[in-house]
Amino acid sequence: MYNQSRVVIENISPLINSGVLPVRSIVDEAVPVSADILGDGHDIVAACLCFKHEREKKWKEIRMLPSENDRWHASFVVEKQGFYRYKIQGWIDPGLNWQHGIGRKLEDGQHVNSELLEGAEILEGLLESVSRDEKTFLADCVTSFRHPGAYDKAVHMAVSEQLHQLLVKYPTKPLFNETAEFDVYVDRLKARFSTWYEFFPRSASETEGQHGTFKDCLRLLPRVAAMGFDTLYFPPIHPIGEVNRKGKNNTTNAQPGDVGSTWGIGSKDGGHKDIHPQLGTVADFKKVVKAAEKLGIEIAMDFALQAAPDHPWVEEHPEWFKWRPDGTVQYAENPPKKYQDILPIYFESKDWKNLWKEMLDTALYWVEECGIRVFRVDNPHTKPFYFWGWLIAEVKKKHPDVLFLSEAFTKPKVMHQLAKQGFTQSYTYFTWRNSKQELIEYLEELTKTDQRYFFRPNFWPNTPDINPWSLQGGNEAIHLSRYFLAATLSSNTGIYGPVYEFMESAALPGREEYLDSEKFQIRHWDWEKENKLTTLISKINHIRKEQRSLQQTNNIEFLSVENDQLLAYYKFSDDRADETMMIVNLDPYYAQNGWVQLPLQSMGIHPGHRVTVTDLITGSSYHWDKEWNFVELHPALPFHLFKISK
Amino acid sequence: MYNQSRVVIENISPLINSGVLPVRSIVDEAVPVSADILGDGHDIVAACLCFKHEREKKWKEIRMLPSENDRWHASFVVEKQGFYRYKIQGWIDPGLNWQHGIGRKLEDGQHVNSELLEGAEILEGLLESVSRDEKTFLADCVTSFRHPGAYDKAVHMAVSEQLHQLLVKYPTKPLFNETAEFDVYVDRLKARFSTWYEFFPRSASETEGQHGTFKDCLRLLPRVAAMGFDTLYFPPIHPIGEVNRKGKNNTTNAQPGDVGSTWGIGSKDGGHKDIHPQLGTVADFKKVVKAAEKLGIEIAMDFALQAAPDHPWVEEHPEWFKWRPDGTVQYAENPPKKYQDILPIYFESKDWKNLWKEMLDTALYWVEECGIRVFRVDNPHTKPFYFWGWLIAEVKKKHPDVLFLSEAFTKPKVMHQLAKQGFTQSYTYFTWRNSKQELIEYLEELTKTDQRYFFRPNFWPNTPDINPWSLQGGNEAIHLSRYFLAATLSSNTGIYGPVYEFMESAALPGREEYLDSEKFQIRHWDWEKENKLTTLISKINHIRKEQRSLQQTNNIEFLSVENDQLLAYYKFSDDRADETMMIVNLDPYYAQNGWVQLPLQSMGIHPGHRVTVTDLITGSSYHWDKEWNFVELHPALPFHLFKISK
Repeated sequence: MYNQSRVVIENISPLINSGVLPVRSIVDEAVPVSADILGDGHDIVAACLCFKHEREKKWKEIRMLPSENDRWHASFVVEKQGFYRYKIQGWIDPGLNWQHGIGRKLEDGQHVNSELLEGAEILEGLLESVSRDEKTFLADCVTSFRHPGAYDKAVHMAVSEQLHQLLVKYPTKPLFNETAEFDVYVDRLKARFSTWYEFFPRSASETEGQHGTFKDCLRLLPRVAAMGFDTLYFPPIHPIGEVNRKGKNNTTNAQPGDVGSTWGIGSKDGGHKDIHPQLGTVADFKKVVKAAEKLGIEIAMDFALQAAPDHPWVEEHPEWFKWRPDGTVQYAENPPKKYQDILPIYFESKDWKNLWKEMLDTALYWVEECGIRVFRVDNPHTKPFYFWGWLIAEVKKKHPDVLFLSEAFTKPKVMHQLAKQGFTQSYTYFTWRNSKQELIEYLEELTKTDQRYFFRPNFWPNTPDINPWSLQGGNEAIHLSRYFLAATLSSNTGIYGPVYEFMESAALPGREEYLDSEKFQIRHWDWEKENKLTTLISKINHIRKEQRSLQQTNNIEFLSVENDQLLAYYKFSDDRADETMMIVNLDPYYAQNGWVQLPLQSMGIHPGHRVTVTDLITGSSYHWDKEWNFVELHPALPFHLFKISK
Repeated sequence: MYNQSRVVIENISPLINSGVLPVRSIVDEAVPVSADILGDGHDIVAACLCFKHEREKKWKEIRMLPSENDRWHASFVVEKQGFYRYKIQGWIDPGLNWQHGIGRKLEDGQHVNSELLEGAEILEGLLESVSRDEKTFLADCVTSFRHPGAYDKAVHMAVSEQLHQLLVKYPTKPLFNETAEFDVYVDRLKARFSTWYEFFPRSASETEGQHGTFKDCLRLLPRVAAMGFDTLYFPPIHPIGEVNRKGKNNTTNAQPGDVGSTWGIGSKDGGHKDIHPQLGTVADFKKVVKAAEKLGIEIAMDFALQAAPDHPWVEEHPEWFKWRPDGTVQYAENPPKKYQDILPIYFESKDWKNLWKEMLDTALYWVEECGIRVFRVDNPHTKPFYFWGWLIAEVKKKHPDVLFLSEAFTKPKVMHQLAKQGFTQSYTYFTWRNSKQELIEYLEELTKTDQRYFFRPNFWPNTPDINPWSLQGGNEAIHLSRYFLAATLSSNTGIYGPVYEFMESAALPGREEYLDSEKFQIRHWDWEKENKLTTLISKINHIRKEQRSLQQTNNIEFLSVENDQLLAYYKFSDDRADETMMIVNLDPYYAQNGWVQLPLQSMGIHPGHRVTVTDLITGSSYHWDKEWNFVELHPALPFHLFKISK
């Protein structure tokens, strides 16, 4: 309760859960920090933001500046991966107060002899800290302030800008107050900018009816690279359970030859640290990872913590599963539904610490053995939040490069909690946000609220689990616009590939699930086929690589268009050297036109200033010298991706 | 980092500064607590709010209930003064999950033999905790669940409401999670409901030109009581400095006989623990406090931490003041302004701990020697925030009854910080909020944001320091409506009395300050005079004592009126047994009329339901059976104070 400081610092931003959990950032980003900083009385308050990387000893300092209503601001750039730490210091500044006071008194015509003597005392205290040149100046000030004959010179020096700069540069901070230290976790750029493609390795064969292998995957890598994807995600590649195996279309009566769900992991052939024999060997998988790397692609591995009834864990660690009083094992269930091909891990087990350790070892195995640096985590929301917090932190302690995508399509606060616990990216509700109003509202929530500090969205128009109503008609325009939206609204994006490209959108009746889903059977794809979708997806992906403004998500500004079917938005790189503007026709059936308002203020120009907008898709350029400009978009090519030149 | 719990509890409300500072409440109030509470997977989460008074050992528990979006709620009633503590527990509830699951499976037509065995195990765990009757029932359940022949009975008991209630009543809370503990400070009712009158004892004499005394104050007490005030605040009653004493109207050249500012404390006659000799003795003052108490009035003392140059502290504790290099003492200043009759306390002193202690001793002296239980603190924002946090806490540790009113008319966050540090009540911007829109916006901020948990407003239409523009004309209607607004918008209210009652609103030219202010000279008042203001202020005060709905501030709801000069609002006691509705004409010159919308939903009635509204000022009753009702108010009596009967 005893604190002599006269300064209070509170309401600090950004903080996640009052600072208990780290804020997230990306290498080279600026972290904007603000706080309410108050002093008593009329004295001048000063404050600085202190920050350092966890491995640095010395704090760096940046002076904070007040805006309105006692709110203070500064930002610091994070240059390295790992944890940064920041804190804020505030103090009543004697030097600045003295200079301010003497200035006001001189303006008022008062004599300031006594004030000059005070100033001499203050400046003497700085002599030890300053450089040689500065010392000469300060010593001159001190002498003049104390020399009654040098009053005019002394007064001139007292209020000089040169002295002001020294007082700012060398604050003495008497009785300063200091906040706690807060963490910022910094990831590599890929956490913010990534383009994902998903296919099932077992459907990769050139020969219809044949089980695909990692060798087939090697063949397909150049295609994925050519389309501009940088992350290739494989559903689980582990042995598939044979007990209670699922049949085609999720039936419970599997027929001989049915390949089962890739998520039904574990059999006599092994578990989570093994490869499904029909795909190849660990050595084959390593070859895929390496070949992909050469093409600029990282392989994202599925991390699905559940077991088929014949998973080796069940025998080796029965205490990791729940056993019922009648001696049977507990299957996954959501009463009255039962999922008998899957046993959930029993996280309430008394042996939970060994269980956690084995899960960590599993992740580390693939990182260390095969060079995996990206995990797509299956249903993380059915495992304890704190478990993820621990596992992700442990992996990143050794391998800060490793990224985790949370596959949780569930309640908003659950999705947020997983992100807070450490997931690098998260699937989102984008899949079901179709109208202009829905999209704007959702993006504003993601990018303008505190979610921006911990929840990194990854926009997927579809996944093997979700065949959304909007795509089920197989309409080309909607496939075009949904990918365009995903890839330009969000800097992280992905598709469940062949199905999307070839618009194979047949669904189980009345459900948002694919008919003849690859989750339960092998499909054959004509990987040579090219269509408008393959062409435009490739084009969009390559444009994303060129335009830095498209490599972040939080930099979005929606523009006014007087048509509810037209969505327009503006993005910019931090240095404003790259500016893009996207306009999308959300109507898959009819051409739509309207007037789009240029974001003059954000672009830093006045009405009448001529800008050139070049559509990077078609190459066409337009000269716009008005604030409102006419656009018309047809379903055949339902978007503009304009680069802005001023 | 290791936490096996499957439940996360976050975003807890109410918290002040993440729980570092206590929330405020009042004896018998309910504290509404809410939090986001999340479990993984599909299991049923349960949660409880635990609370206790600081002097109790055992926590009491109240079950929390979810509303929408994983938000959970409960509230607890604080019954005693002092600190309460609360925390939240959450867990995955095995009993409720089991009952929910078995119910869903039965509805689905499944057999549940295995589930009954599970249930038997769960219920056996409860047998030790329950009452004798409950034990009989539970034992019967266990037996039936295990008896294959009793399937129908077992199933019936398994899903029974009786069993459900027991599962709720005796949760086992395996792997529960728990928040930190948070403080709520509880004050006596007066902190929320008080009616203040201020006059200068030195102006209390019956004889013009004579210095008033405490004996004169004794004479005036019945008048104050008759007008319905319960708190009588005296500006400082300590010896007044003679060095650099201020003259009339704040002039610096005091003439012989000038009495000086009562806030220029300290002279050869003593300091903060002494009484100004012309007022009387400590014994006389005690008589006033006691006589007031008998009339239901508490004397509020001024606590003004500053010193005249001849204050005994200056000689006894020179280190408590700032000395300049030229050997002179530092006067109060706000450059270029100087206040030479006042020395500020030097809180940066090396001897600060003794300084703090003396300030505390001063407050305790008046509490313990004279029974003072209310302090009005002068300019607290020019002393360190943490000093107040410490001083108020120390006083309240020994004397929880003592209340502190913060006289800080300054920047909003500074005013809020003083409240957070412990001030019981605060002066507000009400003094300058005149229009309908300003009043609604300000009240919404005070009562609907987190300010409601720490900032208790006290509405004053005037003070000796503030003669607001609105009152300077001396218009009667505005004096009537401003007091009415203060006293019915806010449950804490006060006036600087005689000046207000007698509408003596002459100002220094161009300033919001009184001409011939009592701050610097003695005034003579005709205390026998009665006018419409004295009559109506008395009436309003007495109505406030009767109507519980007017004894709190946060219970306000503004009503629609289709006239910008008419302000209408509704208030209710917690049990809705008392409901009032106020309508005010803000125009001091013209009659205004319009249609007021009854708050049907809040009142729990339907349109067409007839209500009787009785104006407690005039006694007139109206029967209203429509949602919108016509009112007209004249400046002669510019308000209705309706009591609502249904």
